[in-house]
Amino acid sequence: LRIVLDAMGGDNAPKAEVKGAIAAVKAFKEITVILVGKQQEIEKILTEEKAGQEIRARLQIVNATEVVTMSDEPAKAWKQKTDSSLAVAARYVRDGKGDALVSAGNTGAVLVASLFGIGRIAGVQRPAILSPLPSNCPSGITCLVDAGANVDCKPTHLAQFAIMGDLYSKHIFKVEKPRIGIMSVGEEDEKGNELVFATRAITDKLGLNTIGNIEGRDSFNGSADVIVCDGFVGNVILKTAEGAGSFVLGLIKSAVKSGGPIALLGALLMGGAIKLIKKKTDPNAYGGAPLLGIKKPVIISHGSVSSEGVKNALKVAANWVSAHINEAIESEIKKVEFKSE
Amino acid sequence: LRIVLDAMGGDNAPKAEVKGAIAAVKAFKEITVILVGKQQEIEKILTEEKAGQEIRARLQIVNATEVVTMSDEPAKAWKQKTDSSLAVAARYVRDGKGDALVSAGNTGAVLVASLFGIGRIAGVQRPAILSPLPSNCPSGITCLVDAGANVDCKPTHLAQFAIMGDLYSKHIFKVEKPRIGIMSVGEEDEKGNELVFATRAITDKLGLNTIGNIEGRDSFNGSADVIVCDGFVGNVILKTAEGAGSFVLGLIKSAVKSGGPIALLGALLMGGAIKLIKKKTDPNAYGGAPLLGIKKPVIISHGSVSSEGVKNALKVAANWVSAHINEAIESEIKKVEFKSE
Repeated sequence: LRIVLDAMGGDNAPKAEVKGAIAAVKAFKEITVILVGKQQEIEKILTEEKAGQEIRARLQIVNATEVVTMSDEPAKAWKQKTDSSLAVAARYVRDGKGDALVSAGNTGAVLVASLFGIGRIAGVQRPAILSPLPSNCPSGITCLVDAGANVDCKPTHLAQFAIMGDLYSKHIFKVEKPRIGIMSVGEEDEKGNELVFATRAITDKLGLNTIGNIEGRDSFNGSADVIVCDGFVGNVILKTAEGAGSFVLGLIKSAVKSGGPIALLGALLMGGAIKLIKKKTDPNAYGGAPLLGIKKPVIISHGSVSSEGVKNALKVAANWVSAHINEAIESEIKKVEFKSE
Repeated sequence: LRIVLDAMGGDNAPKAEVKGAIAAVKAFKEITVILVGKQQEIEKILTEEKAGQEIRARLQIVNATEVVTMSDEPAKAWKQKTDSSLAVAARYVRDGKGDALVSAGNTGAVLVASLFGIGRIAGVQRPAILSPLPSNCPSGITCLVDAGANVDCKPTHLAQFAIMGDLYSKHIFKVEKPRIGIMSVGEEDEKGNELVFATRAITDKLGLNTIGNIEGRDSFNGSADVIVCDGFVGNVILKTAEGAGSFVLGLIKSAVKSGGPIALLGALLMGGAIKLIKKKTDPNAYGGAPLLGIKKPVIISHGSVSSEGVKNALKVAANWVSAHINEAIESEIKKVEFKSE
C-alpha cells in the first residue's frame, strides 16, 4: 500500500508530515509512504529524526518545487502552481504510482486537485467531505457528510452522500448497519425544507438503514451513525459545535477565576475531565476527513495536524484502500438511476 | 401597557403563566396582564397564590374553552380550535384590546395565529423568530434571526431579517450600532452559497453596521450582535449548540465518575461553574424569542418556561411596545425597494 503524502501541506509542514510518515511505516508493516515536496527539507528532517536504512527503504521522496499556501485561490493554484507538492502528489496518484493521497493543505486546493487531477468515481455527481465527529454512538463516531465541499446541493447529491457515508461508516468504523439520518429541523417527516423533502423521497428508497430526519442536537448524542446534509449546513454544524464547546469551557474558566481558591482547586482536580474532552475532540484521532467520491482515497487533514495525526491519516488511507470502499461506492451508485444535474 | 398572555400555552400551564403574571404586575408598575384561558383554572391559581385586590385589579381574565397542544398541526389548530386560548389571545391583540402577545405554546401554532390572526407589518415579506443567544458580546447577547420560522428563504427575506434584528438589538439590548453578520462558511467575501451572495448584494447597501460574513463559531464568541440566516440554518445552529454543550458536560460527568473520589471532589468544587453555565444559557432569562414582523409584538416562550421566564417575557413585550420597534421596522422596510417574492 503506497500512500502519497503531500509533505508541504500543513501549518507544521514538512516536519509533522515527515515525522508522521516515519511513525506510520514503523507502526504499520503494510504501508510505504511517498513523500512529495522539497527534497532537501525532507531529507534534512529524515536525518534529524535518525531514520535508519529500514525506514528509508519504505519512504520514497518525490521532489516538488512549489507549495500551495492557505491563502492561495484553489482553482488558480491548480492552474499556475503545476509543480506544487499537491499537484505532483495528485498526478502521482492519478498515474497509478500511489494508491491514496493524504494532504493537510488548503482544503479547497485539495478538493480541486482531487477533482481535476484524479477525477470522480463513475456516476458520482459531487465528491463530499466526511467529518468524523466524536459522539455517543456505539462506535464513538458519527460521520457528518458533506462537511463543506458543496455549499449548494441538489437532492441527488445528498442521496449519493448517504450511500458513500454508509459504506465509509461500515468499513472504517465497523458499524454493521449504519443508521443514516437526514439533517432537518425536526424528527417528524413533515418537518424540513424543500431540499430535505426531495432528498427523503430518494433516500427512503435506497435500501439503507435510514432513520429519517434528525436534528442539530443529534450530531453528538449518538442518534445516528451517518448524518447527511449539504456542505453549507455541515460547515455551520462543525463550527457551531466548536464555538459552543469553547463557550462552555470559557464559562468554566471564568467561574473558576471568580470563585477563589476553592474553585481553583476544583478545576485542578477536574484536569482529567478536560484532558478527556481534548482527547475525544482531537481532530488528530482520525487523522483527517476523507474526501468521498474521488477515484482514489483522499484524506484532508487539519492544517494544524500533528505527526500523530499524519500517522493516523496514513493508516486510515491504507484501510480505505484495503477495504475496497471506492469499488463499493461505484457499484452501489450504479444501482440507482440518479437524474443528472 | 396591556400584555395578552396565552395562559394555557406551556408545559407548566396555567400555573407558570399565572404565577408569572402575578410576579410581573408586582415588579413592573406599568404593566397589566390579560390572561386568556380556562377561567376556573386561572381563578383557582390566583386564589392559591393569594393574589390580593391590588394585583387582581391589574389582571384581567378572558375565558377560552380550548387549548392548542404541542402535537396539534398548526394550520388545523387555527382553523378548528377557534376558541383556543391562543386564538382568542391573538384576536384580542388584533382588535386592539391588548398591545402585545406572549405564548409558550406550540411554536408553529403561535406563528400561524400571529400571521393570520394579527397580520404582518406592511412591507414585511416573512415574519422571523429571533433567538437571543448568550455570547461574549459586550451586551452579553447575540441575536440569531431567523431561528426557525422560515425554512426556505429568498435573499430579500434575509435582508429584512437584518433590518428587524438591527432594530431589536438596538432597542431591547441597547446596542448602539449592532454589528450585523451574515452566516456563511467563511469570513471572506468569496465564501458562501448562492443565498449568501445574493443576500450580501442587498444587505451591504442597507446602511447598517454590517460586518460581512461570519461563521458558526462566531455564534458565541461575540463577533456579531446580530446573526442573519434562514430558519433552517438557524434551527440547526440552536440545536447543534445545545447538543455540543450537553456532550461536553456529559464528558465531564463521565470523567468524574471514572476519576474516583478526587475528581468527584473537583466536581463538587466546580458546582459554581456549572451553575453559571446554567444561568448564562437559561432560556428563561429573556423569557422567550420575539416573532419579528407581526403588527403587534409577539413573544414565543419555551414550552418549559418557568414563572420567572413568563415574568421576563411580559417585561420584554412591554419594552418592545414602549420602544416603538414595530413602527421603526415599518418605516425602515419602506425605505428599501424589496422585490416581491
